[in-house]
Amino acid sequence: MAGTAADVLARADELAAISEEPGRLTRRFATPALARAGDRVAGWMEEAGLTVRRDAVGNLIGGAHGDGPPLVLGSHLDTVPNAGRYDGVLGVLAALGAVERLAARGERPPVPVEVVAFADEEGTRFGTSYLGSAAYTGAMEREWLDLVDADGVTLAEAIVAAGGDPERAVASAAPTLAGYLEVHIEQGPVLEREDLAVGVVAAIAGQTRVRVVARGEAGHAGTLPMAARRDALAAASEVVLEVERVGRSTDGLVATIGAMSISPNVGNVVPGEVRMLLEVRHADDAVRAGATHAVRAGVERIASARGVDVAWTLRYDTPAVELSPDLRRRLAASVEAAGQPVRTLVSGAGHDAVVLSRICPAAMLFVRCAGGISHDPRESVAEADVAVALAVLERFLLGG
Amino acid sequence: MAGTAADVLARADELAAISEEPGRLTRRFATPALARAGDRVAGWMEEAGLTVRRDAVGNLIGGAHGDGPPLVLGSHLDTVPNAGRYDGVLGVLAALGAVERLAARGERPPVPVEVVAFADEEGTRFGTSYLGSAAYTGAMEREWLDLVDADGVTLAEAIVAAGGDPERAVASAAPTLAGYLEVHIEQGPVLEREDLAVGVVAAIAGQTRVRVVARGEAGHAGTLPMAARRDALAAASEVVLEVERVGRSTDGLVATIGAMSISPNVGNVVPGEVRMLLEVRHADDAVRAGATHAVRAGVERIASARGVDVAWTLRYDTPAVELSPDLRRRLAASVEAAGQPVRTLVSGAGHDAVVLSRICPAAMLFVRCAGGISHDPRESVAEADVAVALAVLERFLLGG
Repeated sequence: MAGTAADVLARADELAAISEEPGRLTRRFATPALARAGDRVAGWMEEAGLTVRRDAVGNLIGGAHGDGPPLVLGSHLDTVPNAGRYDGVLGVLAALGAVERLAARGERPPVPVEVVAFADEEGTRFGTSYLGSAAYTGAMEREWLDLVDADGVTLAEAIVAAGGDPERAVASAAPTLAGYLEVHIEQGPVLEREDLAVGVVAAIAGQTRVRVVARGEAGHAGTLPMAARRDALAAASEVVLEVERVGRSTDGLVATIGAMSISPNVGNVVPGEVRMLLEVRHADDAVRAGATHAVRAGVERIASARGVDVAWTLRYDTPAVELSPDLRRRLAASVEAAGQPVRTLVSGAGHDAVVLSRICPAAMLFVRCAGGISHDPRESVAEADVAVALAVLERFLLGG
Repeated sequence: MAGTAADVLARADELAAISEEPGRLTRRFATPALARAGDRVAGWMEEAGLTVRRDAVGNLIGGAHGDGPPLVLGSHLDTVPNAGRYDGVLGVLAALGAVERLAARGERPPVPVEVVAFADEEGTRFGTSYLGSAAYTGAMEREWLDLVDADGVTLAEAIVAAGGDPERAVASAAPTLAGYLEVHIEQGPVLEREDLAVGVVAAIAGQTRVRVVARGEAGHAGTLPMAARRDALAAASEVVLEVERVGRSTDGLVATIGAMSISPNVGNVVPGEVRMLLEVRHADDAVRAGATHAVRAGVERIASARGVDVAWTLRYDTPAVELSPDLRRRLAASVEAAGQPVRTLVSGAGHDAVVLSRICPAAMLFVRCAGGISHDPRESVAEADVAVALAVLERFLLGG
């Protein structure tokens, strides 16, 4: 049979070998590695009878057959550095597998089905999440084109280099869609803890991201007395621990400093400047706002005590998103029909469904992943769980 | 008159414009910028009547006239990133200025005088301090040739690319020298606090440098609950604060984490690994060893409490160096003859004199610098203080 869980896993293995770096999986937006992975997926789409096109930022779209607004299934093909092989990729391959299974049995869904592989969800290269789905939904903002990657390449230049068209990306309008369904690994421990293959996502936690810059004073590490220092890294270290303390203070809250760059960052110079990225997430927007406020107060207290300047720049602030009650009901019915208990849960991670939910009803199906581990080479899913997800998708596509 | 303090400062300004980067001064070992700065200095050496050669790693040597072992005056031309314009450069230019002044007056020192501009003291590119003076004194170690810079270039490759010869560098023997004298900015606040132009260095503090690596577990910043995290950056932040606490605990001690790199270092991933450089310095080797031991105990306590692994790798451990009592007496006499009070002080920073002291009597003269600031674009020296240094050098060269 076409589109088995084993096929999905074999394809994920194949895509995992397509990386920017030897020995580990890193596939950022508009890189040759992403293009090669897209070519493989495009080939599979064509074999499945889909009409393939790439949009202006390189999103890969397996076109629907039939009339009327399509139901879109998909996820993203880009990864974080040193990634696992299922985050994003599983949603694309499960969508493709479900389409193949229906086609192999000659079954025809009531609305056209489109499979989409977004070109950038992680935002690893340009620091903007949901770039792919934003472009797909006509929500890409012109100022993003000036964002610069670590090598000084602008987003506009990267799009052109990858064969896209920045002007067309900014100008494109939102498509009319019947709905959006995304399969994704849970990236958390709930399903594993409760011994469940899949879960229906009720909502996606809101996210606040802030750039925090601590500016002290650089100086010679051998001669600047401890008492005379305004060490930006010592200040930043207190910030990291304050963020951790706030994160631990409330159930379901996560607060993280994931990235930090130190200047000048050599062994014999007291650090003069530290740039950090703060991220705060919670399903309740008020809790998230309160936690962000608490961190900011802590940062200002630390800066003042140390005579260090701090700049606080909000990068984005995405409210929590409730997914479509109609599609969730239909998805829950499909889960039940597949013989599985219905577990509803909140996603701590953001997903393309956040962006799609702004233009159409959106839903998500989570698949259990080993240890809740993601963004790591040890990401792992069980073939039996993927089989459940495919069975749920099939039923969903046929109308729930 | 040739070799005035104004000339020295004008030349320092000229060299400050020769950088790897636009807008800030960075001149690392074996870069085109260092070669261009060397070419300028070589030109001035030749105008001063010195015979110029470059050794196998690119140290610039203004050869002595006359017979017998030379008295060597010098310092280094390389810089840290975003450097000031006097650290190293002042010692080279003051040496050259003193030679010019004596020549202009037709005075001939009792022993030949050689001016040396070392090609690498800061070790910014390959992480090895004193590379230039090590090569000059026949102390370069073969295994250093395999060190790799941030771009994957080996030290051997860099030496070749800069026109040098790694094999000859490793094979060269120690020269026979009458002595070594280095003028350098103090890089600390003592002379400024006591309103003194110059000071005689009694000893150079020992240094311990350690690579500390904290390994936790990477995970998704949105889904990994706070309680389940083994955040390497949170552990490293505790280490930074522990290092600061130990550094503050003893007078004259400095302890610094100057460099840190985080992996994977993106906003939405809990950091899995953090690499740090620890540096501890004190004039008393026992105090330094005790402080390093205390930091290590703290690091292990932090690692154990957080379930994080820590690797502790000693990079180097340089004992404190007492400078030559004979040359110090002669230098002190020259300071007095120049009408200045004699202030003796300890250098917290390492200098090429550490390496030279292993093969000949060595001495150092410190020049006051504004605010004690160094390794920073705000490094500043007063023309009047440079004039004092030149007067002291002249007298020293004539026999004290």
